[in-house]
Amino acid sequence: MSPKSHLREHMEKIFYPESVAVVGATKVPGTVPHDIIHNILKADFQGIVYPVSPKEKFIAGAKCYKYIVDIDDPIDLAIIVFPSSVADMALEQCGNKGVKSVIIISAGFREVGGKGIEKEQKILEIADKYDINFIGPNCLGVINTDPKSMLNASFARKMPEEGTIGFLSQSGALCTAVLDYAQAKHIGFSKFISFGNKADINEIDLLRYLKDDPKTKVILMYLEEVSKGRELMDVAREIIKDTGKPILAIKSGRTDEGASAAASHTGSLAGSDLVTDAAFKQAGIIRCNNIEEMFNKAIAMAYQPMPKSNNIAIITNAGGPGVLTTDAAIHEGLELAKFSDQTTAVFKKYLPKTANIKNPVDVIGDARADRYKVALSQALKDVNVDGAFVILTPQSMTDIDTIATEIVNVAEQYDKPLYASFMGEADVASGIDILQRNKIPHYSLPESMCKSFATAYKFENHKLNEIDRTELYNDVDKESARKIIDDAIKKGKKILPENEADRVLETYGIPVPERKLVTSAEEAAKVAVDIGFPVVLKIMSEDITHKFDVKGVVIDLHTEKETKDAYESIMHHVTKFRPDAKIDGILVEKMVPKGQEVILGIKRDPAFGPFIMYGLGGIFVEVFKDVSFRVAPIDKNVASEIIEETKSSKMLHGTRGIEPADVDALQNTLIRLGQLAVDCPQIKELDINPLIVLEKGKGCFVADANIML
Amino acid sequence: MSPKSHLREHMEKIFYPESVAVVGATKVPGTVPHDIIHNILKADFQGIVYPVSPKEKFIAGAKCYKYIVDIDDPIDLAIIVFPSSVADMALEQCGNKGVKSVIIISAGFREVGGKGIEKEQKILEIADKYDINFIGPNCLGVINTDPKSMLNASFARKMPEEGTIGFLSQSGALCTAVLDYAQAKHIGFSKFISFGNKADINEIDLLRYLKDDPKTKVILMYLEEVSKGRELMDVAREIIKDTGKPILAIKSGRTDEGASAAASHTGSLAGSDLVTDAAFKQAGIIRCNNIEEMFNKAIAMAYQPMPKSNNIAIITNAGGPGVLTTDAAIHEGLELAKFSDQTTAVFKKYLPKTANIKNPVDVIGDARADRYKVALSQALKDVNVDGAFVILTPQSMTDIDTIATEIVNVAEQYDKPLYASFMGEADVASGIDILQRNKIPHYSLPESMCKSFATAYKFENHKLNEIDRTELYNDVDKESARKIIDDAIKKGKKILPENEADRVLETYGIPVPERKLVTSAEEAAKVAVDIGFPVVLKIMSEDITHKFDVKGVVIDLHTEKETKDAYESIMHHVTKFRPDAKIDGILVEKMVPKGQEVILGIKRDPAFGPFIMYGLGGIFVEVFKDVSFRVAPIDKNVASEIIEETKSSKMLHGTRGIEPADVDALQNTLIRLGQLAVDCPQIKELDINPLIVLEKGKGCFVADANIML
Repeated sequence: MSPKSHLREHMEKIFYPESVAVVGATKVPGTVPHDIIHNILKADFQGIVYPVSPKEKFIAGAKCYKYIVDIDDPIDLAIIVFPSSVADMALEQCGNKGVKSVIIISAGFREVGGKGIEKEQKILEIADKYDINFIGPNCLGVINTDPKSMLNASFARKMPEEGTIGFLSQSGALCTAVLDYAQAKHIGFSKFISFGNKADINEIDLLRYLKDDPKTKVILMYLEEVSKGRELMDVAREIIKDTGKPILAIKSGRTDEGASAAASHTGSLAGSDLVTDAAFKQAGIIRCNNIEEMFNKAIAMAYQPMPKSNNIAIITNAGGPGVLTTDAAIHEGLELAKFSDQTTAVFKKYLPKTANIKNPVDVIGDARADRYKVALSQALKDVNVDGAFVILTPQSMTDIDTIATEIVNVAEQYDKPLYASFMGEADVASGIDILQRNKIPHYSLPESMCKSFATAYKFENHKLNEIDRTELYNDVDKESARKIIDDAIKKGKKILPENEADRVLETYGIPVPERKLVTSAEEAAKVAVDIGFPVVLKIMSEDITHKFDVKGVVIDLHTEKETKDAYESIMHHVTKFRPDAKIDGILVEKMVPKGQEVILGIKRDPAFGPFIMYGLGGIFVEVFKDVSFRVAPIDKNVASEIIEETKSSKMLHGTRGIEPADVDALQNTLIRLGQLAVDCPQIKELDINPLIVLEKGKGCFVADANIML
Repeated sequence: MSPKSHLREHMEKIFYPESVAVVGATKVPGTVPHDIIHNILKADFQGIVYPVSPKEKFIAGAKCYKYIVDIDDPIDLAIIVFPSSVADMALEQCGNKGVKSVIIISAGFREVGGKGIEKEQKILEIADKYDINFIGPNCLGVINTDPKSMLNASFARKMPEEGTIGFLSQSGALCTAVLDYAQAKHIGFSKFISFGNKADINEIDLLRYLKDDPKTKVILMYLEEVSKGRELMDVAREIIKDTGKPILAIKSGRTDEGASAAASHTGSLAGSDLVTDAAFKQAGIIRCNNIEEMFNKAIAMAYQPMPKSNNIAIITNAGGPGVLTTDAAIHEGLELAKFSDQTTAVFKKYLPKTANIKNPVDVIGDARADRYKVALSQALKDVNVDGAFVILTPQSMTDIDTIATEIVNVAEQYDKPLYASFMGEADVASGIDILQRNKIPHYSLPESMCKSFATAYKFENHKLNEIDRTELYNDVDKESARKIIDDAIKKGKKILPENEADRVLETYGIPVPERKLVTSAEEAAKVAVDIGFPVVLKIMSEDITHKFDVKGVVIDLHTEKETKDAYESIMHHVTKFRPDAKIDGILVEKMVPKGQEVILGIKRDPAFGPFIMYGLGGIFVEVFKDVSFRVAPIDKNVASEIIEETKSSKMLHGTRGIEPADVDALQNTLIRLGQLAVDCPQIKELDINPLIVLEKGKGCFVADANIML
């Protein structure tokens, strides 16, 4: 990676250059270099374009330069379109010329493997040498619709409309589909960036740029590979906290097959999709499955006010679609608002007798614009209503375009979100066009409309996704934990002995049963009395992993005599079965009472680092795979989410025949485990299986823990 | 309901009339009567139209008749467009004229309640008197695109294209949206019917008609209310079995709020949506959530061959969308075909080096039609491939229309399904139009494409949805069961006493534990020896419902002495707590060994009649609501489905620490329970909670059963 000390300044020149050199321009139509230079010129760029071409004298009326260094004027931005074989030389010349901001369109780098990887390394070194920052290689380019710049430095077929959506994509091909999709729906963009192999400037840099871009209200992103998961989470949280801009993202490769297709496409190493899911949730990033879903949600948030509540009104001219929309709304967790008496009175007065004046309001098939206007205005006026859905079917009396215009007028008068669905396609097309031009989100499906509203509502009402660090524990003893682990690593251990694992947990305040290592039957009995019956005795020997197989464990001991006998019995059996084993002693441990069993774990993801796994024990994890994940560290809020996300959480809250468990204690343990995961990167994996959660107020205890180094 | 003895004949005249009278025609533009007569004339109807209007002399060049009886020629079909207030008189005159087939467009009947209900009754009586069959009232009308008829007897804005999809709708307004949607996508219809209040001809009659209609290949249906669920299931099965035509249906009112909106819209009483779900599944009806989903699936089945397997090939010019489609395909249970060596060789030879020749095949962004042709033809030629998805993004080199034409050409050469997704909207529009005109199913979303393929594949491979009656049991004793129940009803009982409930189950071969009613301690001990220890003793008294409260039950008795003592103890306690109770004796019952507990039940749905409920006992039903439903009777196949549909079925098949249960015995019990539900309509509700299912081969036993009358 090249240095990023002047990154912000350099990025500013990528989007707002006053002079652009297209390095490798040609006159041959149908080629990328040709398309780029023509795109820049067509889009009314607010600056000077310098084609650089070893062969041509002029291109599209502009004088050509043989080399970029031949240009007398300073160059803010160079766009390299030469083949990858000479891209390094071109970049070197940019360096000589003093250009600091570059877009490398050329393909043939890391994505093709082999020599391509070396080539990418080479250009990074050159960029480093000259303090250059660049976007690409292997990308479609960059578009800035700001009238101050009007830069289409891409080989896309078209320049999008100006708008408030910032779009980032790792896939160039997807960009062309997105631009085409957006054009038809009058969706505008503030900045549109294809960042390709992200060898230098990556999605995190671009997110940070869009954060401060006053033209951008909503940020969309298509990713095939997350390389710096933590930074991505941090920047997303920062954006949401500081600016309230929503971030929506598609991350492909959800299934194993998809991930492997993505890998062969980009050479990326995909982490677990479930961790990505969790990380996005934690960072407040709204994950979408496809372009349509992403834009459906984006236009809701970019065009309309955010919903203050989930109480919506439905206005329709057809009963059937009203029912379908109601079904979809309820399914998405929305509620049909109860109209005020005043609203009901207005509906009674102005709507026909046959109209259904309850929510969903049916203004009846012969409704014209006046009736829609009355119903919609009154619904939005109602204090019980915080959003409205307008449904239209093209019946013979329906004045579609006038109704669309009326919807636009009404929407302007109220600070509440209004979405529309004109059902059909051909006849309703002109009406939909009016809505789309005037920033009324339009959906062909009631489901998409309701889903988009629900997403906006949830985003608005759960904005704070930052970990509350005041909720982390100060009483953890990081030094001691690390020392135990480091000592074990020094001894070449891959698994921490049980007693030491327990000690590590203890240093983090995770409750392990009281216990002591003893070396005689008398001592065992004495310790048992001290810690209180019932106790468990376990053989401690690094040579013995499967303690039960050598009869090295006796549980449920209630008296001194039982304890002494158990000690002798263990020693007898162990020395018989494993005469070779070096024995450290026998562990006398307080027996954990019965409770609900849960399983906790720490694992590490290549992109997102340490994360916590949680599930209710027994069949729930083993048979139903009812587990959830969160990236560490976690606070009380996230600890609660991780528990509630599992279906089996109901069990913990108590149900017929089962007492409510100490969920507070469990949450605390999860928080502490998250701290341990972050503080001790030497822990490769940790399993607590099970943790016994007792009844409310009685705490929880580790019954068995394993730490892999 | 009017008689249906000549229904088929009368329906034939509705779709293929040689003469049509429009009763209530007017010249006033923008009215329903005006639109209908003009629609018929515009559509090149193959017959004669007679406007009937008390006021006009002619309409649109056609001579008007004051009354229908004034027409000299015979009339095959009358369309009544008069207001509901005079519709009855118009129908009476149709009767006088000898018209047997009628469409009543007029609204203002059952759907408005009150007097409307009487009006609907009135027209039914008139139809009965004259042996008339009619569609409506309160409908949009009927369209037949068959060139032999070309009838647009509706007030829809447009005549659809000819096609192979038959469409039925309870909502007229939805029809207008559907026609508009279909026009834009070149989706054609064979018959298009809005049946409104279905006072006479209902969806079942229409389904039967479409079954035999050679022009119809796929049947679509929008329902707000199912009134005759059983008949609907029967006719659907009949259609699928005899003709293989798929039936797709939207049934609105999924949520309680939706159902209540539907009720206020149509005055219908909605049954449980879960039962509708089950019934549709059993009948082979493909349930859809919205118009778009329904047509997405319908065009797949109407346009293309059915998939022989779920092995698909993906051909794309963009990696990202290829990955997204792969994710969606795997999610829908499809598989990426492994290409043969020959295919791989062809791809290697004809595709560029940078192309990904594994599935998903990436022909690279600069691909033109020739490359798509090679890839697609070879993929379809491959014996490992049973379907292909073509993805296109509009890149600068992409010759979109030529590629579309090439896809059409290739599709014609192979008897394998081929679907396409041209991503974007504006630039790809003309290409999509070429695909749609040539019956290549097109999807803007990979998800919809994969879902549609999966639906077609499942339909093709699970066609037989008929209950196999040879799998029902002949050894059930219907007479005895009915007698026990009837006797109880005669005595005014609402709940069958436990002993009698057990006897009813026994008559159906449902295993209840061996037991005998005794009246002395000695007898109890003797019986216990006969049936074998351990046993349970239970007080039997109609006056005592909560046996445990009066210490009327003792379990787990292992000896004669224990049994005698238990007898005395029960008698002692019961006479103390309830000296008033009339005691029949004490039941000595074989104690059921431990096993997995399941809950079975019979309930009745207003539309679909008796159905079976099933769930694994304990927390699975109580906490997770993990239950499934099927309409009775059920065969082995359905019994297996009802079990496997629950998430907890894994438990029955054995898992860590749990032995596999006797699923066969459970299935048999479910089948027998289904027979009981059908044979004894007096049973309002039946609960077996729990049924104990023992290990494989050891059977199952009813532990407790309740029958409500």
